[in-house]
This record gives sequence, C-alpha cells and structure tokens, in this order.
Amino acid sequence: MSAYHPLDVTEAIAIARGLDGVFQPDAQLTCREIGDGNLNLVFHIADPAAGRSIILKQALPYAKVVGESWPLTLDRARIESEALRLEGKLAPGLVPAVYFYDQELALTGMEDLSDHIIMRQGLMNGSRYPLFAGHISTFLAQTLFFTSDLGHNQQEKKLLSRSFTNPELCKITEDLIFDDPYRDAESNSFEETIRDEALALWSDGELHLEVAILREKFLTHAQALLHGDLHTGSIFITPESTKVIDPEFAYFGPMGFDIGAVLGNLLLNYASREGRDGSDAEREDYRAYLLDTVTDVWAQFEAKFLALWNEHGVDRLANAAPGYKEHYMQRVLQDTIGFAGCKMVRRIVGLAHVADIDKLADAAARERAQRLALRIGKSLIKLNRGAVSINQLVDTVLAASAAVKA
Amino acid sequence: MSAYHPLDVTEAIAIARGLDGVFQPDAQLTCREIGDGNLNLVFHIADPAAGRSIILKQALPYAKVVGESWPLTLDRARIESEALRLEGKLAPGLVPAVYFYDQELALTGMEDLSDHIIMRQGLMNGSRYPLFAGHISTFLAQTLFFTSDLGHNQQEKKLLSRSFTNPELCKITEDLIFDDPYRDAESNSFEETIRDEALALWSDGELHLEVAILREKFLTHAQALLHGDLHTGSIFITPESTKVIDPEFAYFGPMGFDIGAVLGNLLLNYASREGRDGSDAEREDYRAYLLDTVTDVWAQFEAKFLALWNEHGVDRLANAAPGYKEHYMQRVLQDTIGFAGCKMVRRIVGLAHVADIDKLADAAARERAQRLALRIGKSLIKLNRGAVSINQLVDTVLAASAAVKA
Repeated sequence: MSAYHPLDVTEAIAIARGLDGVFQPDAQLTCREIGDGNLNLVFHIADPAAGRSIILKQALPYAKVVGESWPLTLDRARIESEALRLEGKLAPGLVPAVYFYDQELALTGMEDLSDHIIMRQGLMNGSRYPLFAGHISTFLAQTLFFTSDLGHNQQEKKLLSRSFTNPELCKITEDLIFDDPYRDAESNSFEETIRDEALALWSDGELHLEVAILREKFLTHAQALLHGDLHTGSIFITPESTKVIDPEFAYFGPMGFDIGAVLGNLLLNYASREGRDGSDAEREDYRAYLLDTVTDVWAQFEAKFLALWNEHGVDRLANAAPGYKEHYMQRVLQDTIGFAGCKMVRRIVGLAHVADIDKLADAAARERAQRLALRIGKSLIKLNRGAVSINQLVDTVLAASAAVKA
Repeated sequence: MSAYHPLDVTEAIAIARGLDGVFQPDAQLTCREIGDGNLNLVFHIADPAAGRSIILKQALPYAKVVGESWPLTLDRARIESEALRLEGKLAPGLVPAVYFYDQELALTGMEDLSDHIIMRQGLMNGSRYPLFAGHISTFLAQTLFFTSDLGHNQQEKKLLSRSFTNPELCKITEDLIFDDPYRDAESNSFEETIRDEALALWSDGELHLEVAILREKFLTHAQALLHGDLHTGSIFITPESTKVIDPEFAYFGPMGFDIGAVLGNLLLNYASREGRDGSDAEREDYRAYLLDTVTDVWAQFEAKFLALWNEHGVDRLANAAPGYKEHYMQRVLQDTIGFAGCKMVRRIVGLAHVADIDKLADAAARERAQRLALRIGKSLIKLNRGAVSINQLVDTVLAASAAVKA
C-alpha cells in the first residue's frame, strides 16, 4: 500500500473492497467516517443489501483532547492491533475480531460492532447489564494472568513486554492521571464552583504520597499486559455481549490499573446519580446495582484468576510458596482500589472528563456529583495500601455518599 | 569483519594491531588467552616494550558452569558493551574504558586492568580496601539513580529498558538464585555434611514466601538498569582503584539486587573467616572491617542517592510528595537485605559456589562457614520486608555468628 496519509472515504471503500471474502465484488458499499477526529479516523463500510459491514480504523499522527493538539506516534496502531489479536486469543469473543493490519497506513480492519453501544452511554441511560461482570472479569483474568510471569513463559514475556514498549501513550497517563490533578497545572479543567476541591487536592500531602507510590507502580511494575485505558468508553456492550475496544495504551504494567479503571468508571456513574432524574428509590436501586457490579467484578476476577493460577501456573515457587497467592491477590486488590481512586479524581479536575457527570444539566446537582466523585476517589486512594477486602471499597463509597448528603 | 567464529591468538593480535592509536605499527605484540573458557574468550594483548596493553573479550555461544554446558545468546556481548559505556558515563573511572564493540564477532575491546586483582581474591588474602565503600557506593548511586524514573527522562527510560531486554541471562538468575536452592534440583551442589541444611531449605514455607516475593520483584520491578551480577568476582580492585566489570546480566530490575549482591558477597567472606588461619582477634578484626564496609556501603549509597535525587530529580510528584523519599529508600533497603540473603544461600547449596568458602581446606571449618553463611542468608531473607535500618542487618549477622559458635 501507499505511504502514510489520512485516508478519504473513497480510498477506504477501495481498501475494503480489496479484502478477501468480506464483500461481494459487485456490492454497493456505503461508507461513513464515524470517528471523533481526536485520535483516529474510523470508517464504517457496509453492504446494506447483504447485511455485511466492517470497520477500518486509521491512527492520525496527532492527538486532540479538549482543544489541545500534540503529535502522537502512529506506532500506537500497531500496538492496538497486536493487543486486540492477543486479547482475542486469550479472551475469545470479548474483543472485536481483527481482519488485517497495515503498518504503512497505521490501519486496522476489524469487526463492526454497530449493534452494541458504548457502555458509558448505556449506564447514563440507566440500562443494566447483568452479564457484564462475568464478561469483564473473564477478560481481565484471562488477559492479565496469561501475560504475567504466573501464566506466561517468563522469557517470552520479556520479549512480549519489549514489543509493547509504549512511551508516548504512557506519558499521557503519567501526566494526566498521576501528576496534573495534584498541582495547579494548565491542563487541568474544573468548574469554578469546586475550586476549593482543587485547592485541597493540590495541598494534600498524605494523598500525594499515595499517588506517588501508585505512579511509581505504573512506571515500573511490569506485571502483565494491560489494556491501559479500560474505562466504560472503551467497552461496547449489549445485554448479551461485551466487547473491549481501543487498547492503544497497552503496555506491561500493574494489573490493578486495568481493574481499577473498570471499577472507578462504574463509581463515576454512581456519583453522577446525584444529578439524575427519578425518585430517590430509583436512584438508590441503580446505585445498588452499580455497587453490586463493582463487587461482582472483583469477586469473579479473583476467583477466575486463582482458578487459572491453580491450573496453569508456570512459576514453581509462586505456585508452591505458602501464602503467596493470598499475598499476591491482596496486593492486586490494593492496587485496584488505589488506581480506581486516581481514575475518578482525574475525571473531575483533570483535562479529560466523563459525560456521566459533565452532561448533568442542573449545575447544583452536577456540583454534588463532582464533590461526591472526588470524595470517593480520594478516600479510595488513601485506603489502598491498607485494604484487605473489596467490602472496604463499598463501605468507603457508602460513607462518602452519606457525608455528601449530610 | 568476518562472520562469527571464536578468535585465535593470531587473529586477536591482527585485530588489536588494526586499532587506531593503540599500538605502534612495528610493535612486537604478545597475546595470552586468559579467560576461564566458561563463557568468554579473553585476550590480553600487550606491547611490553612500550608498556601498552589492551583486552579483547569475545562471547562464546555457550555457557559452562561446573561441567554443565548450554547454549547462550551472543547478544550478551552487546548488552555488556552498552552497559559498560553507559556506566562509564555515569560513574567515570569505575568501569574499564570500552574502545570498540564489534557486533558480528561479539567482541569488545577494553582497558586492560591487569594491575588490579579480583576483589574476591583480595578479600581471601585478607587485604583491606578503605576506598572501596566510597567507590562502589558512587557506582551504585550514579548508575541506579540516573537510569531510574527518578533521574532519567521517563520516556527515554522505557526505550533504554527495551534495549536491555535480557531474557536468557535473567533466566540463569531466576533459576539458580530464586528457585533451585529451595527445592531438590539436579543443578544444586552441596556437601553431604550439610544435607540437613538443604532439606531445611526445601521445606521452609516462611522462607519460600519471602523468596517468591523477591523473585517476583526480580521478574517485574523495572526500577533501574542493574549490573545484574555484582559479586566480588565482578570487581577489579587495588587499594586506590575499583573497577566494576562483566555486566552481561544487565537489565532493568530492582536496585536492591545490585546492592544486595555487594553486601551478600562481603558477608560470604565474613562467613568464610570461620575457616581462615590466624588468631581469634585477627579474625574478629577482619570481620569488623567487613561489617563496617557493609554498613558504609549502604550509608554512603543512601546519602549519595538522596543527594542526586535532591539535585537532579525529574519526577515532580516523587520530588514533592511528603514522606516519599523515606518510603522509597526504606523499600530499597528492604530489597537489598532480602537479595543479599538470596545471594548467600545460593552460593552454599546452589550450582555456583564462591572460592571464599569452597577453598577452605579444613572440612570442619568449611562446614562451619557454610552453616554460618546459610544462617545469615536465611535470616536476612526473613528480615527483609520488616527492615527499617541497616543496623538490623548487622545485628542479624552478629546473632547468627553467636548462634553458630554456641
């Protein structure tokens, strides 16, 4: 194929038509560019008559977030396609199928998931996904266990880690999640109504110590191949199906960062219920659903991970040492809780927010939701190294909710 | 140059003669192969008349340890030469100068250090090196700080870490230090007189838990570029000069592994004093010198590392978070103590021993030294996560000595 340039609709159709066994030669193809234009072009190409469709996703050589733009490596498209393929092998059915990857064009052809919706939107709609905890815990257990030193040949893991070296995307996380929210950074974005909260974040030494320790783990703890950006906007969902997308931040890091991203984003929606319409009873019922999902994701993850370890553990000493499994899982839980908190705080005062809260129309309700999210996030960060049970996370959330109400 | 093959003396001379500015064109060169033949060829090439000399070191495509032989990547020569160059920049004068590296031949030309002796031999001779603690603490502080996320651009560090991916050499450590001594492995080697000690190692669950946690750190904690094999046989020394050699095990791992290697090998010599000639007073005096060196290495390392951090720290949050530096240094100390213990245990029951102890002629004295080394090693491993001061290491050593005497 030709040298890198952003594709147009005509080129995208030509590429799709050239793929073996996807479309009939004489098919009438439609094409829409459906990306948000901030990082990638996303072409949806369909043959409506035959009911067939495909996604072509092309990386752009820059990133735009909330109006800012900076150059960004095209290599992230390779990392994304390789991560999707590996995740697809380890967690079949839980990521879109990858049909091809073109290095030159930074272009991936993949399964069209238009029958799914983005989970963040689903939660904002008040939908429930009773199969989600089962699906995402399988995804987490399978991808994290089998890329770790517990479940992967330890020499091959080092080579795999080398191929997922991802400095530019990691830097975004290191800055936006683990630094800027804790100082008066230009990149920060928050409403003036909660400036007191921002000031409190910038001067909270106890919090800074915990975030520094979590930041160090993100920088140095090459535990398993992470998705790296596993919020509810990276999950396509229906009541029956869960598909994890967009692993362009993939790299070898601490397992709790992925698990915490899922839990933290469920809790952001929990906090957003301060500003949702409906009766108190409806709100509390949905919140109970979200909290049940949080504990269920952890409990199922832990059980599945341990089952994999018992059956497929490759590290003799790790398998045999008395108490090691318990010690390991407790540290993953602690990391999960700490990272969940970091993921919440950055979404309120940092550069990139979440629609769950930003889209609340009522200013007072939005402010309550922001304050609740920060209270939960900070409490989880401070809890992390002392945690021994997921129930402590639940207690922390309930206590923060009660305190905000009072 | 030609494709890879082991060089002979004639070829080595020809290569040395071809180097710019090393020897005169008409020099009468002598050449001796002085390697031990287990991993590398080492050619010492000299012009005695001019008083000039050079070392050519060539990796062999296999490793031999105590009669066993297995294939081993030639890439370790690249890693060694790159590590030496980087260490030479960060810690000038503390490693041999590298003149060239030939990838094809896995051949490095470097400074001749024939006026130094191997430190292990120096300690066995009872020599004292009052400048050593200052030198090695500078080497450790400079190389570890400036390759860590505290002192190195965090994105470039990821790329540097990628280029020091070293699975084959790491596997040797993972097996021989962090697995085999704790099970009835074929590779183990110990005298029948201490079979009771081996059996105790294999069934000590508390010890296995600590070793499993240290093993995990070695596998996953990409904290800084390590030398990776920093025992007293990897150090050339005179009373005035210290040169760290042979970093072919270099990779990004936990700092405490390098520091612990130094301390553990000083303590192996300490244990060997059970079987050395001389009066009790002489023995205790030399032991006091070794223990003073141990505490001095740590204390100077800590002070120099913190001074570098205060002046050159690149991580805003790590620099600013109250209590983080203390927390960081305490964890490095804990790792140091744990890894020092692992380094001692493996030298008594594992595949590769140390001359300090193996060369003791008197069987009863040798056995006492072995039991003392194991007692110290196990105690340090069990102490590691609870340690808050280097004095606890000293107390542990003294208590073990007293217990063996009793």
